[in-house]
Amino acid sequence: MSGGVEWALHCCVVLTTATEPVPAARLAELHDVSASYLAKQLQALSRAGLVQSVQGKAGGYVLTRAPARISVLDVVTAVDGATPAFVCTEIRQRGPLAAPPEACTRPCAITRAMSAADAAWRAALAAISVADLAADVNADYGPATMSTIARWLATPQDGASGA
Amino acid sequence: MSGGVEWALHCCVVLTTATEPVPAARLAELHDVSASYLAKQLQALSRAGLVQSVQGKAGGYVLTRAPARISVLDVVTAVDGATPAFVCTEIRQRGPLAAPPEACTRPCAITRAMSAADAAWRAALAAISVADLAADVNADYGPATMSTIARWLATPQDGASGA
Ligand code: FES
Ligand code: FES
Repeated sequence: MSGGVEWALHCCVVLTTATEPVPAARLAELHDVSASYLAKQLQALSRAGLVQSVQGKAGGYVLTRAPARISVLDVVTAVDGATPAFVCTEIRQRGPLAAPPEACTRPCAITRAMSAADAAWRAALAAISVADLAADVNADYGPATMSTIARWLATPQDGASGA
Repeated sequence: MSGGVEWALHCCVVLTTATEPVPAARLAELHDVSASYLAKQLQALSRAGLVQSVQGKAGGYVLTRAPARISVLDVVTAVDGATPAFVCTEIRQRGPLAAPPEACTRPCAITRAMSAADAAWRAALAAISVADLAADVNADYGPATMSTIARWLATPQDGASGA
């Protein structure tokens, strides 16, 4: 799993509290990360339709739908793709006792086991929304946390962000 | 996830049916894979205590315990390690609104979500044993499958395995 998942999820949580589009440079400044690195994650989120870029003077990124309708799985898949970690190379069809192709129309029992685990992982991530994460952040650090972030995001940039 | 997981799981299933220790070269021949590549997976299984190497003329690998007591998770962890796919780099402690260290004694909500999914994945893999896989193989390819493999493994090697 790429490090981008952590940044992308934090950005989505932050965007739940924004009242205006948030420039990529502002998100980068908040997280103290290079703007070009964060731009990659934001583009991945944008390609997946989770955020959109609003053009103009007050432009920036917004979530495209209610945070309760964006799951952690949506974000992880946007950044890391949907390919399962386990890839079967059909080794059952190799060697002196190779299974004939007609016996291999169904995935191998080992592949099925790995796929079941992958499905359990996806289901767990699909069950948690970005809204849930934002609520957890408030519960963890106090009810003022998200509004402090909202205020900071709404403060005009001083041009010294280095982004 | 490394390709070694597929080989290691197939080896474990094959070893459930062996009546004698199986030389690594024989397992490699059965799977039509290089002996040195397979040796790496077998060594990982051995380090994890799932197989052991019996020395001597009729030497080779055996499972160390009943296949019902070896889970798919045991094998996956032996080959790929126990490190979760998601690694938190504590980005909440960066930037102008960094959470103070004393507010970060508990993992971040995002880390908790990723850990919950990882736990679901592990639980799914822990629930399936190598004995289950062997039973599935028999169900998939017919009841003679595992005994055909057993017979092939017990056939003296002809020295032409190339291993
Ligand atoms: S053939 Fe790929 S997991 Fe069995
Ligand atoms: S600080 Fe690492 S996931 Fe939130």
